[in-house]
Amino acid sequence: MPSHRRGAVVDDRVLNATLEVIAEFGSMSIRVDDVAAAAGVNKTTIYRRYPTRDELVLAAVLGLAEQTIPTPDSGALETDLVLLCEAVRDTITAPLGRALLSAGGHLDEQIAKLRRDFWTARFDASTEILRRAADRGEILMPARGAEIIEIMVAPLHFRAQQVGGDIDDDFIAELVRRSLVVLAA
Amino acid sequence: MPSHRRGAVVDDRVLNATLEVIAEFGSMSIRVDDVAAAAGVNKTTIYRRYPTRDELVLAAVLGLAEQTIPTPDSGALETDLVLLCEAVRDTITAPLGRALLSAGGHLDEQIAKLRRDFWTARFDASTEILRRAADRGEILMPARGAEIIEIMVAPLHFRAQQVGGDIDDDFIAELVRRSLVVLAA
Repeated sequence: MPSHRRGAVVDDRVLNATLEVIAEFGSMSIRVDDVAAAAGVNKTTIYRRYPTRDELVLAAVLGLAEQTIPTPDSGALETDLVLLCEAVRDTITAPLGRALLSAGGHLDEQIAKLRRDFWTARFDASTEILRRAADRGEILMPARGAEIIEIMVAPLHFRAQQVGGDIDDDFIAELVRRSLVVLAA
Repeated sequence: MPSHRRGAVVDDRVLNATLEVIAEFGSMSIRVDDVAAAAGVNKTTIYRRYPTRDELVLAAVLGLAEQTIPTPDSGALETDLVLLCEAVRDTITAPLGRALLSAGGHLDEQIAKLRRDFWTARFDASTEILRRAADRGEILMPARGAEIIEIMVAPLHFRAQQVGGDIDDDFIAELVRRSLVVLAA
């Protein structure tokens, strides 16, 4: 086997082992020792390719995302966007995706139930805003008010927890503007 | 002090202690023993009010949300929605909110950096979809393509990680429809 090919095989093994270790321990704070053991390679083999643990984790998680969420190219924008959303959904709801995203602890059933109860109560409180606006004649009361609130606030949570970066007033104005368009439709 | 008032004071102390314990251990899987110690009350006092740990945690987190995210009532829909988003932002970016949402582990700086690098790479890959659509003349290339992708996929992540419930094709169609409206504007 030519050496660049063998290098690619080792690389795959290291990155797959990294994902396994993250999934098993439910944390991005993995130990390179554990990855080396899972991949059956020497630790120095890993450090030669990925000088820091963070580079290793990033390469593994990006590799997974590229495999499971390829950039669609159907020739039509709407189809591409649907394909992208479907691939994201399938990846983040699969066991490995869940483990990677919850980094720091597998969500158990009780916590999942608790979260659902919490959000039901919260969205219910917030749809009151829509009910009042409907009473004032600003809008017609939408059939799925809770979903409108959920979609509006989701990018706040996603940015705060995942993406990072500021949530500035322009970002909030954009989210509100989008909700108003939907409510006016 | 009349007894119903004393009851409310004890209740506040118990719920505040619950939040402290969750924030300290970075997990919703708290021990009622720890809450009792932090509140300076007997465990039976807690169980009398909240028969299960889950009810205790839900009451504490809902109590916090009601305090920090009151339902706005300004008399105008747009203002209400902006106030709601601002309150959500302030709550989830504050230290306690972060601790509650990351349930299972405080995010350290390295992981935060890793996440930012990951999302930058992912959104960059996905804006390729928009670039191709612009090349085909379907849309004008938007100035902030990565933000459009971020806002489109955020509700998928939010529902999968936080809210729970199915991500069905109607939900995806709704997210895509909203993005197309923005892209057409």
